[in-house]
Amino acid sequence: MSDTQLHAIIPAGGAGTRLWPLSRASHPKFLLPLGRPERSLLQATVERLAPLAHTITIVTGQSHEESVRAQVADYANIRILSEPAGRDSMPAIGIASELIRLEFGSQAIVGSFAADHVIADEQLFRELVHNAVGAAERGYITTLGIEPSHPSTAFGYIKPGATVMEGVRAAQEFVEKPHVERAKVFLANGYLWNAGIFIMQTGALHRELATHQPQLGKLLAELARQWYDLNQEEKTERWSELAAIAFDYAVAEPSARAGHVAVVAAPAQVGWSDLGDFKSLTHHSGGAYELPTPTAVDARSPHAYGTAETPPIFVVGIDDCIIVHTADALLITTAEASQKVKEIPAQLKENGHPDLN
Amino acid sequence: MSDTQLHAIIPAGGAGTRLWPLSRASHPKFLLPLGRPERSLLQATVERLAPLAHTITIVTGQSHEESVRAQVADYANIRILSEPAGRDSMPAIGIASELIRLEFGSQAIVGSFAADHVIADEQLFRELVHNAVGAAERGYITTLGIEPSHPSTAFGYIKPGATVMEGVRAAQEFVEKPHVERAKVFLANGYLWNAGIFIMQTGALHRELATHQPQLGKLLAELARQWYDLNQEEKTERWSELAAIAFDYAVAEPSARAGHVAVVAAPAQVGWSDLGDFKSLTHHSGGAYELPTPTAVDARSPHAYGTAETPPIFVVGIDDCIIVHTADALLITTAEASQKVKEIPAQLKENGHPDLN
Repeated sequence: MSDTQLHAIIPAGGAGTRLWPLSRASHPKFLLPLGRPERSLLQATVERLAPLAHTITIVTGQSHEESVRAQVADYANIRILSEPAGRDSMPAIGIASELIRLEFGSQAIVGSFAADHVIADEQLFRELVHNAVGAAERGYITTLGIEPSHPSTAFGYIKPGATVMEGVRAAQEFVEKPHVERAKVFLANGYLWNAGIFIMQTGALHRELATHQPQLGKLLAELARQWYDLNQEEKTERWSELAAIAFDYAVAEPSARAGHVAVVAAPAQVGWSDLGDFKSLTHHSGGAYELPTPTAVDARSPHAYGTAETPPIFVVGIDDCIIVHTADALLITTAEASQKVKEIPAQLKENGHPDLN
Repeated sequence: MSDTQLHAIIPAGGAGTRLWPLSRASHPKFLLPLGRPERSLLQATVERLAPLAHTITIVTGQSHEESVRAQVADYANIRILSEPAGRDSMPAIGIASELIRLEFGSQAIVGSFAADHVIADEQLFRELVHNAVGAAERGYITTLGIEPSHPSTAFGYIKPGATVMEGVRAAQEFVEKPHVERAKVFLANGYLWNAGIFIMQTGALHRELATHQPQLGKLLAELARQWYDLNQEEKTERWSELAAIAFDYAVAEPSARAGHVAVVAAPAQVGWSDLGDFKSLTHHSGGAYELPTPTAVDARSPHAYGTAETPPIFVVGIDDCIIVHTADALLITTAEASQKVKEIPAQLKENGHPDLN
């Protein structure tokens, strides 16, 4: 195999509402410098994939196309596909894969990587992707599963099965986010976190769609053939006909049941994080929004983030307190509660505060 | 008896460090409009006592003398005594009482009232003081004890004994701030909160001091006789010779054991509060520093206070959260932990941050 065969797909969607008020509908998580001070998560993702990938296709919402284009202007071989509307991850990955199939053939390998995750050990990451490409060349829908460091309830899990080639096992089952007791059982049984990384031949994805989502597969293939001939209005209309469905539900889960999915286990030291909420952010340092650690009295591990001029912060009697101070909002929460932060932008949307949303 | 015999003493000391960062060494709690938007706690105290008292004597630190004088400029019959240094409450009350004894005699009644407490029902308060003056005329050191609304661990308690006259009982014992289990037992046994209000003849206080603190009593009586003849340096030197001791330890406790203290029970509806910490402040509305109630997600009863321009505040997953935002500090705590806030100014003092202290 050769790494040059890999075509990276980066679905850049999602508002990152659990990171509100840093992440907003107008400048969502992937555009923010949360991983390093001077790179957005998207830029860091592109930088990580550029040495591995022959081409990179970013699929993003129309409202973010301009920002995305500006952020990746330094790179050649990047295509930006603009979604007329959000239809979840399957249409986004599917249209990119079908376009690559038309251009590079059914043997071409695509890899889908989230725009807003971080990886600490990029050397190890490249080796793991290399292994996954090997499995993809044999026809598997191949995923990277992360060895869990704790019984997280924030991620789905993958149950690994028999070894199918060196360093690669069958993925028997994808399981949704569990309760903590179930997560502990998963850990004890060697389950892996589903990091949403999928590597496969364009032809393999085409086949799996034909089996499990025949209507969507057919529409995507047709739309890809006409993509560059349609005007915006036509594209919008055709796009609205696609089922809004996640890649996991449309392909990963049914294909795993059919024995067509393989998993490469990524050791915890690869340092993958989805920076999915403020608790996750506190385990990762180096982002642009970190404020000086608050002074604590009877209060374990406070963390503060912000974009506003903030005076010194003091926390008394609250463990794992997280403070986020922007110019227009002050959020107080804890690591434990940080998953619920997403309810605020949801409420603001309902109550007609689009400026804060 | 006649109300005109009462001479009010207001010891205006203490930094109110549990209300940091609103209360500072340079503008402590009693100077702040915490009870009503346009009156400091001291001004509200003077306003409450003016109809009851023939004279008012405020005893305050030299550094606050000017602020105090400005705040009470509208009142006649107010004397301000400036303490060269803080020596706790006994010297402050004692010097005022001895000066009043020299001017109005040993039968004159003094009443000591904290500068920074609030009373909701002032009509009821006046009636209770009236009763207490009656007991003081019979020679008792007389206190108002507040009927507890809950087993507070923030106050000392008074154990009432036999009835000594209508509406007045002996105060058998003063007990220091208890743990919560002991506080519950106190409630079950009819104990009252010690609000630090003491009403007595100047001669009675003079006698009790002669018995329980003879050296301090002698020095105070001498100092009072010379007070207006001493220059500042002499006053400072003489003041430094006084024992730094609280009125409760010096007089109330030993006099109670000797059977010389009476207590008038104040029903809870008198609405006394010491506004001693942020938890206490949340039970009292009307202060100048209240900010709009934060938006809560899975978070009971958040409260915000501030003097700074503060954006909308959101609290996720923390019950009884209290946020205080001044121009130079942001404090996050809870009602339960709010007693510990005082540790911050203590630390800042140690670490040499006098500006924040």
